[in-house]
Amino acid sequence: MSQYHTFTAHDAVAYAQQFGGLADPSELISAQEVGDGNLNLVFKIFDAHGVSRVIVKQALPYVRCVGESWPLTLDRARLEAQTLVEHYQHAPEHTVKIHHFDPKLAVMVMEDLSDHRIWRGELIQGVYYPQAAQQLGHYLAQTLFHTSDFYLHPQQKKAQVANFINPEMCEITEDLFFNDPYQVHERNNYPAELDADVAALRDDVQLKLAVASLKHRFFSQAEALLHGDIHSGSIFVADGSLKAIDAEFGYFGPIGFDVGTAIGNLLLNYCGLPGQLGIRDAAAGREQRLADIQELWNTFAERFQALATEKSCDAALAFPGYASEFLKKVWHDAVGFCGTELIRRSVGLSHVADIDTIKDDAMRHACLRHAIALGRALIVLADKIDGVDALIARVRQYS
Amino acid sequence: MSQYHTFTAHDAVAYAQQFGGLADPSELISAQEVGDGNLNLVFKIFDAHGVSRVIVKQALPYVRCVGESWPLTLDRARLEAQTLVEHYQHAPEHTVKIHHFDPKLAVMVMEDLSDHRIWRGELIQGVYYPQAAQQLGHYLAQTLFHTSDFYLHPQQKKAQVANFINPEMCEITEDLFFNDPYQVHERNNYPAELDADVAALRDDVQLKLAVASLKHRFFSQAEALLHGDIHSGSIFVADGSLKAIDAEFGYFGPIGFDVGTAIGNLLLNYCGLPGQLGIRDAAAGREQRLADIQELWNTFAERFQALATEKSCDAALAFPGYASEFLKKVWHDAVGFCGTELIRRSVGLSHVADIDTIKDDAMRHACLRHAIALGRALIVLADKIDGVDALIARVRQYS
Repeated sequence: MSQYHTFTAHDAVAYAQQFGGLADPSELISAQEVGDGNLNLVFKIFDAHGVSRVIVKQALPYVRCVGESWPLTLDRARLEAQTLVEHYQHAPEHTVKIHHFDPKLAVMVMEDLSDHRIWRGELIQGVYYPQAAQQLGHYLAQTLFHTSDFYLHPQQKKAQVANFINPEMCEITEDLFFNDPYQVHERNNYPAELDADVAALRDDVQLKLAVASLKHRFFSQAEALLHGDIHSGSIFVADGSLKAIDAEFGYFGPIGFDVGTAIGNLLLNYCGLPGQLGIRDAAAGREQRLADIQELWNTFAERFQALATEKSCDAALAFPGYASEFLKKVWHDAVGFCGTELIRRSVGLSHVADIDTIKDDAMRHACLRHAIALGRALIVLADKIDGVDALIARVRQYS
Repeated sequence: MSQYHTFTAHDAVAYAQQFGGLADPSELISAQEVGDGNLNLVFKIFDAHGVSRVIVKQALPYVRCVGESWPLTLDRARLEAQTLVEHYQHAPEHTVKIHHFDPKLAVMVMEDLSDHRIWRGELIQGVYYPQAAQQLGHYLAQTLFHTSDFYLHPQQKKAQVANFINPEMCEITEDLFFNDPYQVHERNNYPAELDADVAALRDDVQLKLAVASLKHRFFSQAEALLHGDIHSGSIFVADGSLKAIDAEFGYFGPIGFDVGTAIGNLLLNYCGLPGQLGIRDAAAGREQRLADIQELWNTFAERFQALATEKSCDAALAFPGYASEFLKKVWHDAVGFCGTELIRRSVGLSHVADIDTIKDDAMRHACLRHAIALGRALIVLADKIDGVDALIARVRQYS
């Protein structure tokens, strides 16, 4: 293992030659840094035909989109790689493959997905991947069941919980999801026209009690190894294919957080579509998103239930009927966390292109207001929304 | 640090001389092994006047009451000592003081409590300590609040969770509380006359679903650093004094588990009293136990609430009203865990003297049946029992 230094394109090529798993490493000749995220360097490594063959990703010791003033642990590269390796074991068709990682260099070499597109961009353009929602539900069920108390031996689970303790990345979520939008904070980011809407959040007793409870669950409920940031920008899609990437927020937390984040990003797209597409296409896209949410949850719940029936190792949790009881808890958690995702992406530091790229100010503000109002409703009503059909009815009510 | 070897009385004296914190260590001259528990060697270290001055406790690498066929981690001595040291910081008046511990030797030197008595024995004999229940509520509030997400910085909490991962001791609880009594198992221990009562537990769908949920919470909800085994045999009392000992089951778990274990042992005493005392004394003792339970919970809840108001560090959890919402969750958890304590102490491996020392078979069996029926009711009704008065009403109903 080497000491940490920031990779140049040249370093990245040499590293990919060594660890990219190619039969003839000399095929790899050049690299391009393509990281557009908030946190990391990402190099595509090309062959002589200009084909990208492998990805080299390196964590930077600070938050890239903010700068060196916000330092951030390099250990997140280990956590990301180990989360993806663990998830790959249970959902290889829907998890990016890690060829190699080095915790000291905070670097990993992984499968190139240049034949895929980031799902968020496709959703914004109205390009529909009819299998994606189902595949995401499958990914979530496979990864979350197999890292839960249903499946893992208690001693193995506890060792995994300790291994995936992720204080710095969790703190980002704790702050951005559960604190910033509900107080005056310099990290918040919203147009002045929304001042009154955002001020109302800060004064909303019912909302702040519900957010406190969600944050407490995020803090304390180690139900499974979460992806931790499974939004549509962390998901690659192609015809009939879906792959999760970017798991540096991985830790043992409440299953509903991953499910709620996934649903929340489909709802953010739903909120933004009227600003992205013509009226008919936007309406059609919205119906697709609602169908996607239904498909995502139903696939997740049915698959999780089937795994619980077939593969539960814990004698008590294996009792017939318990998994479906537990899934009710997961559902209510998911609705609440989904609401926090809608609000933090509209008010907080990090927004989504589904809404932020809307050029018309009035339209963009209307979409932000929609996301905030819907998010608030889902947070405070989470325990009363008893299933995915009831959720969809609520979404239509707030449209 | 030294390699592990089992202490002789002579070793214990020498060790106490070195680490007992006495001004003149040569005062310590003899030791007596007094361990009557299931797991450890316990030496009282005496001076020339025959006064016990300090305790040396050493973990054995197996379960003492079973033998070398059930090996058990020596790391529990570290976990016990560190739990007690942590709890002492927050409730010094109600936690035994640890003078020294050595993880390699699995040994600790601690405060002598020979002027105290084990609470269980006093409860059985009808000796009343009117401040004990209140003091126990205070201990639980102080220790559990200050190790919770309300108070600890999120990064510190996560480091503590990792440090107190306690797989082997938790597995004992997981098995004895949540598995064995609800299945045929060689570790179970009950008279043949109760066969039908115990068989009914195994066939009780509603009960097994509720037990699965409680076990799942025990597995996954890291709310605070629990004592983990806070029954009346782990508590010393004297006039106006109460001290918790024996924290080898310490880990971050659901707060309701500690509260429920404490209440459960008062209810086990309640169930056993008619076999221990004359009719009038038993009736009076039962009323004291119900008053104790009320005092314990009310003290705990009021103190926890006051601490949350004064000392919550987490901005979201500090929101006025949230602590009392959370305490409702703790209460319902406590009622359920209390029920599992009643059943596992009546059906499972480890019983309580409150019932087991009743000489008359028919009376003992009646008390066991009472504990089982009450335990079952509390487990399945936990979510419907909305406060300590409702609990007491239920207890009277099942008397």
